[in-house]
Amino acid sequence: MNNRKLSVLEMHRISVDEFKQSRKTPLVIVLDDVRSMYNVGSVFRTADAFRMESILLCGITARPPHPEIHKTALGAEDSVDWEYFADTHEAVRKLHEKGYTVLAIEQVVGSTMLQDFKPMPNCRYAIVMGNEVKGVKQTVVDMCDGCIEIPQFGTKHSLNVSTAAGIVMWEMMKKINLN
Amino acid sequence: MNNRKLSVLEMHRISVDEFKQSRKTPLVIVLDDVRSMYNVGSVFRTADAFRMESILLCGITARPPHPEIHKTALGAEDSVDWEYFADTHEAVRKLHEKGYTVLAIEQVVGSTMLQDFKPMPNCRYAIVMGNEVKGVKQTVVDMCDGCIEIPQFGTKHSLNVSTAAGIVMWEMMKKINLN
Repeated sequence: MNNRKLSVLEMHRISVDEFKQSRKTPLVIVLDDVRSMYNVGSVFRTADAFRMESILLCGITARPPHPEIHKTALGAEDSVDWEYFADTHEAVRKLHEKGYTVLAIEQVVGSTMLQDFKPMPNCRYAIVMGNEVKGVKQTVVDMCDGCIEIPQFGTKHSLNVSTAAGIVMWEMMKKINLN
Repeated sequence: MNNRKLSVLEMHRISVDEFKQSRKTPLVIVLDDVRSMYNVGSVFRTADAFRMESILLCGITARPPHPEIHKTALGAEDSVDWEYFADTHEAVRKLHEKGYTVLAIEQVVGSTMLQDFKPMPNCRYAIVMGNEVKGVKQTVVDMCDGCIEIPQFGTKHSLNVSTAAGIVMWEMMKKINLN
């Protein structure tokens, strides 16, 4: 077995221009009042890796350019498209108008466990990630077409928002593109 | 569809004592020189959610109790077992002695893509996550039984270490416990 680590050149990553032109995973990330710029930057970095369509930054969520976002995005804020909405409800309305299926990532009465999510062919999805303490606002959840829950078996009530976003982006991207 | 968000009580999380007694996912997380305490805390929080066996903190990786770790672990440093090794190679040796299959999370010449990973029945696994800049040391990779890579399609060369750890813990836990 050859376990030699790849050099940066061998990874054959694409440029920002190539990223802009590339075919994206049909998945939009909506951030509903995310407080920490570390989390915003980290979501940009994961969205770059999995070629997400765009990120909608809503309410109090900070926008690039910002040194604290850059610290964890490391430039991914230049490749991934983003848009700002003062009101998360307005972002969900716009997504619905454009034909997206909008799913909140939340623990609700009737949520679908992430492992059971099955993408519909030719469907474009958006997922809504909520505030670090309060989660996705109930009024936003009420507008969504469904809720996805990451099953959890420990003592804490939730995952870090950028970790949760990473897990959901991975699972949905994999089921849409790699299966 | 009832989309009412669950209350904290309705989540039925277990106590720290119940966690200690519970049957764990047969997966150990090894942190090889992880610099940021934010990342260490975040790994603890995810490890709690997915009931990981333990975390081995190696080299320069910070240990609890520490206010910066607590900030992102939020108490998960009290539920998840951990051990410190000054030398990561020594941690891998100990894991091998105990019969674990040790996998580095790295981009190497012969790596297995994460979506292709298939757990062997009754096998106990350990995954090694590396430093934020340098990744897993080549000499540690050389000791491992294999390498798992998260496929990436963007402009950046890697994911944030706590996001990558979250994605790998989710995918392996799901395949071991939920399939």
